[in-house]
Amino acid sequence: MGGDSFGRIFRLTTFGESHGVGLGGVVEGCPAGIPLSEGYIQKELDARRPGRGGASTSRREKDRVRILSGIYEGQTTGTAIGFYFLNEDKKSGDYSELKDVYRPGHGDFTYEAKYGLRDYRGGGRSSGRETVSRVAGGAVAKAVLEKKNIRAEACTVELGGIPAQDIDPAGSRERPFFAACDGIVRDWEERVREVKDKGDSLGGIVEIRVSGVPAGLGEPVMDKLDARLAYALMGVGAVKGVEIGAGFDAARSTGSENNDPLVPEGFLSNNAGGILAGISSGQEIVVRAGIKPIPSISLEQKTVDCSGNPRSISIRGRHDICAIPRIVPVLKSMVLLVLADMYLLHTCRKEFNTGCR
Amino acid sequence: MGGDSFGRIFRLTTFGESHGVGLGGVVEGCPAGIPLSEGYIQKELDARRPGRGGASTSRREKDRVRILSGIYEGQTTGTAIGFYFLNEDKKSGDYSELKDVYRPGHGDFTYEAKYGLRDYRGGGRSSGRETVSRVAGGAVAKAVLEKKNIRAEACTVELGGIPAQDIDPAGSRERPFFAACDGIVRDWEERVREVKDKGDSLGGIVEIRVSGVPAGLGEPVMDKLDARLAYALMGVGAVKGVEIGAGFDAARSTGSENNDPLVPEGFLSNNAGGILAGISSGQEIVVRAGIKPIPSISLEQKTVDCSGNPRSISIRGRHDICAIPRIVPVLKSMVLLVLADMYLLHTCRKEFNTGCR
Amino acid sequence: MGGDSFGRIFRLTTFGESHGVGLGGVVEGCPAGIPLSEGYIQKELDARRPGRGGASTSRREKDRVRILSGIYEGQTTGTAIGFYFLNEDKKSGDYSELKDVYRPGHGDFTYEAKYGLRDYRGGGRSSGRETVSRVAGGAVAKAVLEKKNIRAEACTVELGGIPAQDIDPAGSRERPFFAACDGIVRDWEERVREVKDKGDSLGGIVEIRVSGVPAGLGEPVMDKLDARLAYALMGVGAVKGVEIGAGFDAARSTGSENNDPLVPEGFLSNNAGGILAGISSGQEIVVRAGIKPIPSISLEQKTVDCSGNPRSISIRGRHDICAIPRIVPVLKSMVLLVLADMYLLHTCRKEFNTGCR
Amino acid sequence: MGGDSFGRIFRLTTFGESHGVGLGGVVEGCPAGIPLSEGYIQKELDARRPGRGGASTSRREKDRVRILSGIYEGQTTGTAIGFYFLNEDKKSGDYSELKDVYRPGHGDFTYEAKYGLRDYRGGGRSSGRETVSRVAGGAVAKAVLEKKNIRAEACTVELGGIPAQDIDPAGSRERPFFAACDGIVRDWEERVREVKDKGDSLGGIVEIRVSGVPAGLGEPVMDKLDARLAYALMGVGAVKGVEIGAGFDAARSTGSENNDPLVPEGFLSNNAGGILAGISSGQEIVVRAGIKPIPSISLEQKTVDCSGNPRSISIRGRHDICAIPRIVPVLKSMVLLVLADMYLLHTCRKEFNTGCR
Repeated sequence: MGGDSFGRIFRLTTFGESHGVGLGGVVEGCPAGIPLSEGYIQKELDARRPGRGGASTSRREKDRVRILSGIYEGQTTGTAIGFYFLNEDKKSGDYSELKDVYRPGHGDFTYEAKYGLRDYRGGGRSSGRETVSRVAGGAVAKAVLEKKNIRAEACTVELGGIPAQDIDPAGSRERPFFAACDGIVRDWEERVREVKDKGDSLGGIVEIRVSGVPAGLGEPVMDKLDARLAYALMGVGAVKGVEIGAGFDAARSTGSENNDPLVPEGFLSNNAGGILAGISSGQEIVVRAGIKPIPSISLEQKTVDCSGNPRSISIRGRHDICAIPRIVPVLKSMVLLVLADMYLLHTCRKEFNTGCR
Repeated sequence: MGGDSFGRIFRLTTFGESHGVGLGGVVEGCPAGIPLSEGYIQKELDARRPGRGGASTSRREKDRVRILSGIYEGQTTGTAIGFYFLNEDKKSGDYSELKDVYRPGHGDFTYEAKYGLRDYRGGGRSSGRETVSRVAGGAVAKAVLEKKNIRAEACTVELGGIPAQDIDPAGSRERPFFAACDGIVRDWEERVREVKDKGDSLGGIVEIRVSGVPAGLGEPVMDKLDARLAYALMGVGAVKGVEIGAGFDAARSTGSENNDPLVPEGFLSNNAGGILAGISSGQEIVVRAGIKPIPSISLEQKTVDCSGNPRSISIRGRHDICAIPRIVPVLKSMVLLVLADMYLLHTCRKEFNTGCR
Repeated sequence: MGGDSFGRIFRLTTFGESHGVGLGGVVEGCPAGIPLSEGYIQKELDARRPGRGGASTSRREKDRVRILSGIYEGQTTGTAIGFYFLNEDKKSGDYSELKDVYRPGHGDFTYEAKYGLRDYRGGGRSSGRETVSRVAGGAVAKAVLEKKNIRAEACTVELGGIPAQDIDPAGSRERPFFAACDGIVRDWEERVREVKDKGDSLGGIVEIRVSGVPAGLGEPVMDKLDARLAYALMGVGAVKGVEIGAGFDAARSTGSENNDPLVPEGFLSNNAGGILAGISSGQEIVVRAGIKPIPSISLEQKTVDCSGNPRSISIRGRHDICAIPRIVPVLKSMVLLVLADMYLLHTCRKEFNTGCR
Repeated sequence: MGGDSFGRIFRLTTFGESHGVGLGGVVEGCPAGIPLSEGYIQKELDARRPGRGGASTSRREKDRVRILSGIYEGQTTGTAIGFYFLNEDKKSGDYSELKDVYRPGHGDFTYEAKYGLRDYRGGGRSSGRETVSRVAGGAVAKAVLEKKNIRAEACTVELGGIPAQDIDPAGSRERPFFAACDGIVRDWEERVREVKDKGDSLGGIVEIRVSGVPAGLGEPVMDKLDARLAYALMGVGAVKGVEIGAGFDAARSTGSENNDPLVPEGFLSNNAGGILAGISSGQEIVVRAGIKPIPSISLEQKTVDCSGNPRSISIRGRHDICAIPRIVPVLKSMVLLVLADMYLLHTCRKEFNTGCR
């Protein structure tokens, strides 16, 4: 477990640098008999589309997935699903000036401290491009969960400090920034433009909701469902905070406000975010991730080079100014991976419950 | 991996219910030659003292640890360290009225949904009492990390919606609530009294800081140091949010504000919380957890019984009104467990780095 | 994973040295609703009885198990089952002369090489006494598997180079040495006496058979059922070889001899030992382990001390001359642990198979 | 962990079917700074050459490895190494007659029992072709271990029941069958011819030796070095038995014969196979695997079809009559994977040993 794998029994292992030959991954533990194809996965990858809303660059990425194994006659066979992407348009020349300098807010310094060397071209393994394999793996999880009517939606609920007034995830796929509602899009576009003009960048907050999750998922006490979700989301580059349900607001409320009362028809509120004591309650799962601004900015910044000399750096070129919207499908994918894994883990034991109460 | 273990190679496995015969755990993967004793562990357990500041009950818990293995002549031997606690003063009678009813905000409903039965006495495995084994395991991690001069402090930075004005973790052990500063204690005591009188409860925010962490810890891309920390903290009952460094505030800032500039003397700020691209940077690690209010309140709440009939419940008895201060040493312990594990994982490969740049 | 755990999702973690305070373990991932008690586990432990057939010493061991958690009102609750044993009659004085010398065939030299120190009292963690926790864990697996009518038997098929003429595992519990048949017992007793008189020791071969295993257990390609069985058995001290079905004899046969033909009523032979391509076939599982002679012998042996000086050693005291019969229940326990784990792993996915062929 | 991964921290995950689009794998946890290239890996793959000695078919396999990540400027970067092979000359038509019938000795029946469907073309995931990814992964392990002067050799010590008279692994790469000595080759060639003419097949025994292994590798008690080796080897298709050192012969010897005496210059024998109490002793590691005959034979065999009707089958076409020599580099690769993993696991803790004895 060198750190490239996620999941206990439904497990994604990924590989690949932004400017290497290619990227890819392996999904282990997928049940047999799930309808799946390259086209199904490609559709999820295409949702990782850049450019919507102005926060992303127009750089073209041909993320064409190729599946090598684990599918036969349109169904999963139960064996490992291997897939890859070739890096096509990469131009290493763009990055040679970064060879000896540490970009603030990037992993340049820490990768070199850890490994004694680094692939300085475009961030290497720490590049956001790494997430293409997570989205492909998440698409497999999506196909599994669909068989059980478990569905996830992700949307942006805050951008550049401006919160959406309303949260309606269903339509977010059609909106710029995967915005949580229509009304906020124009404000966000304006904020993006303003920050872009200054050569600066922006962060935001993404919310993921999952419906159809049966009660009982999550493994106490260390592998609580919320613990696995936090692990999954905080493992995506740029994420600096994770909340479940009411999150940090719960820390500011009282028990009588925060507890979700139960009536015969179900829960009267969902401050818990669908998880009680680490186990799904049957309510909608609600989780949020706070995303830092993209560290690559054209504004001048202080830094040092590999020899420790002071340097000044201004990062130009085709850079997004916000990880949103690209990160939205990635976060959704991580949530899907957690749920597929926890669903299977719960399933393995539940047939023994018959002797109970 | 039924969910009771945490860690890749420095690994704590725990067991135990609040009203069973006892609790305990096993630490695997501890290096040999670390000075350790029951007394050393007990000291950490005693910090989990109730009653300071009025938020906890005066219930006496004799958490006397007994070590069964892995230590010889005052040092660890490199083999598994097994330990346990007996549950002494438990009175199951207190809980029989909860047998058929689901307490709002508790795991009663979800445990029963998952397992088909539950040990209803005091929350069983989902009780906060489970964390006694985490603190014992964390004490072993502390002993390992001390050999490398890595030290953690934890303090309460907000209680009942009232933030501390200042954060000075060093003295927090001596303050009620493990308060981050002296000046806030009186306000918090007053807030606690007020809420207690109403039969309600409170949440808060805890910050953990770790000094002496060398650059290089954390395993990209899934086992980033921040991902492991989020996993560890969100796995503690009552935690609903986790932040690294600037956390959700980073999501509201710009790149030029949030990036930490580098000069020859080091970083000029620490919005990253000591972690860049999932790897420690050599700066102080800073992480926060948002804690929900204790769900057991004497105010009347709506709920249902096991047959789905509506019920009204008012939970009386010896209950804390806030997980703080008890949870503070628990969160620190989880951070120590993560760091011991990531330290060892990093160490296993670094001797090969000699051929590099 | 410091090496004290076994199993993917039904997982046993053990701890304890032969002359420490105590030993024990934790079973994670046990389903809820399984009838279980201390008495049930104790019965399995008592089968590890010494003295039958003369190969074991008359040393008294009070292996009284105490369960601390995971069972409520006579059933498993689905949470971790913690248990321990206290070391009572230990006399460390017996071993002080071994402090500075490496016993041939023991782990003295290698433990010291690995850890830089060792608990020299009676072998410490490498003592056969460690296996008491495996038997307790195996008893939990037995309880789980019994619900599915999966049952294991273990018997000795060869001792001191003398093979049993016949293999009838059912009655072996009642026979000295857990002998595979009645007819061989007298020859083995004689062989034991003869070797004992010379101050030497003996090895043997144990066979474990499991009936009722459904087709489909085992996870290709690395976690094949036979791979997990070999892992489990070779991890027991003194085991130097493992075979499945025809084992090494298969290596000497031809395909036409070794293949098991299929007819509508089932397989016509079982050279495969119930496993094809790493997956159970529904036939009886058959596996064997070769056990080396106990290395503690009173015959004089050459060795060195910690400073590298030549020494001569004759190990006297209460030592078994053969790991059989004590090891027989241990090996059976390991097989049960593998099957419980593989059963659950298979179960988690099979409900998805409905769309298949 | 769906079963496609091997290793704790130096970890190989593989994917691929014999007649799918391609095969491949990911190596996680490889240290940075190891010289590595496609050419280096290809050389190991080419050793998996068919045809030598007549036991293998002349079928051409272009196992051209393509590395996608983890290597930069001729060195490993410490990040995941992804690689793949395309299946080129596959002809699915050859296999359509096997769609509805279970070949004796193959996984057809058990795969279908497990997954509810199967890719019947050439064995799918259970095909020996799967091992190409193991050899590529093993080559990475080889490169790591070479930096520490740890080297493995593998040779055939018995074929068709005829043992080699002598074991000289060094030259085996140049001999047909990877034979352990020159003198036996003609006898084996004759035996192969004879069996081939009958339409039957053969098994054999392979020995792997590793030199340069320092004392201290292996993690007691469940992850003993011998346990991991047995797990690794028994996980290769066709292996039915595994022995360490004297193996089953140890079971037939006495303690005075089997113990390896120590003198100041070292051990006087190596019945232990270089492993004592699960930890390497610094002696040569010696392990053997028993290989069953290839189950695909042209002799007629009884079987059934998917509906349970009796069938007779004679398997013709380009089939090897023995897994040897193809399996020899595979078994060596598995041993290398175990040693790289155990080396790293041991390394992570040994720097703490300074306080010891």
